[in-house]
Amino acid sequence: METLMLYGDRFWISPYVFSCFVGLREKGLPFRVETLGLDRKDQRTPEYRQRSLTARVPTLVHGEFALSESSAIHEYLDEAFPPPEHPALLPRGLRERARARQLLHWIRSDLPALREERATTTMFYQRASAPLSRAGQADADKLTEVAGAVIPARGGPLFGAWSIADADLAFMLHRLLLNGHEVPAPVRAFAEAEWQRPSIQEYVGRERPPYVAY
Amino acid sequence: METLMLYGDRFWISPYVFSCFVGLREKGLPFRVETLGLDRKDQRTPEYRQRSLTARVPTLVHGEFALSESSAIHEYLDEAFPPPEHPALLPRGLRERARARQLLHWIRSDLPALREERATTTMFYQRASAPLSRAGQADADKLTEVAGAVIPARGGPLFGAWSIADADLAFMLHRLLLNGHEVPAPVRAFAEAEWQRPSIQEYVGRERPPYVAY
Repeated sequence: METLMLYGDRFWISPYVFSCFVGLREKGLPFRVETLGLDRKDQRTPEYRQRSLTARVPTLVHGEFALSESSAIHEYLDEAFPPPEHPALLPRGLRERARARQLLHWIRSDLPALREERATTTMFYQRASAPLSRAGQADADKLTEVAGAVIPARGGPLFGAWSIADADLAFMLHRLLLNGHEVPAPVRAFAEAEWQRPSIQEYVGRERPPYVAY
Repeated sequence: METLMLYGDRFWISPYVFSCFVGLREKGLPFRVETLGLDRKDQRTPEYRQRSLTARVPTLVHGEFALSESSAIHEYLDEAFPPPEHPALLPRGLRERARARQLLHWIRSDLPALREERATTTMFYQRASAPLSRAGQADADKLTEVAGAVIPARGGPLFGAWSIADADLAFMLHRLLLNGHEVPAPVRAFAEAEWQRPSIQEYVGRERPPYVAY
């Protein structure tokens, strides 16, 4: 098999690197990680720009093929390493798969105030000290409302079986949980149970260098 | 066949509604459009929130199934209405498909200054009058650099055959072209040729009501 390598960030705070790291582990694929210092603008070197095309992390390198954008990486992994040999990252049912993609794309493109005010540095370095702005609180409310609508009443995975959407939703919710915000009990229970998944704990528990703002 | 309906915005300026409208036309699927006034907060009615889950446009309604997020809609359309009966929105080759998704997701999540300073209102209503900020210009440069890297030297579609990524890249480039910015000749040629596609011209040429800021 051609080797797999994932470019990540050296502080291990990117939600998108998280998502691909967890996805690779869940598929049981051997891979190594190479970290870039976004604080040092490592992503702007000509070599990385050429490989990633868009100068962002993560980039997955599979043999000679390099691919960035986490959602594109999920799909590629499911297609290049399909189930049942490698567990699926996306649900197998047509509509469940559509719903998972909806959630993944929504998490990546909405809730801008929450993503800024409860940046991932507040999850892995210093907790937030300022209260949420009105826009931040509106985003937090929308997040818990959408989460409440997709989390099954009986608990357990979002779409019948675990998918990468479970991990990404739990990560987003931990912006609130780790910063001490109130979250409805069923939503909290889902997020906290998901957080214990070994692939997630491996990412969360990484040793991290002192943070340098960028 | 169960009917297809697309929720759009009444000013016809959403890049994501554009993408789904073009996709439905390219697949040759009969559908109708229902427009919401985002200026009137129509998207926040309980009925639409329940249907869309995330209170954003577009939402595709297929029989009883409602799905939002344009990238999820593309994938759903290709899976529910597969080629060869319905032309594919995403390339058929594994790596070309991955690259198209990379481009689609990048367009949706990067270049924030350009998306704000050359909002789609400047494409369909009043042209921009202020010059780009430094951040806006950096985004414009990055856009033309990435476009230059994916547009084939001989012209023609990005990934061997037309895909929805061609339409979305052309749309993004028209934020610059319609506002009179300099764009490298091969990039301009690609975007202008793509813009003539009937499905795109149908969207672009819609009658639009007077714009109300929101």
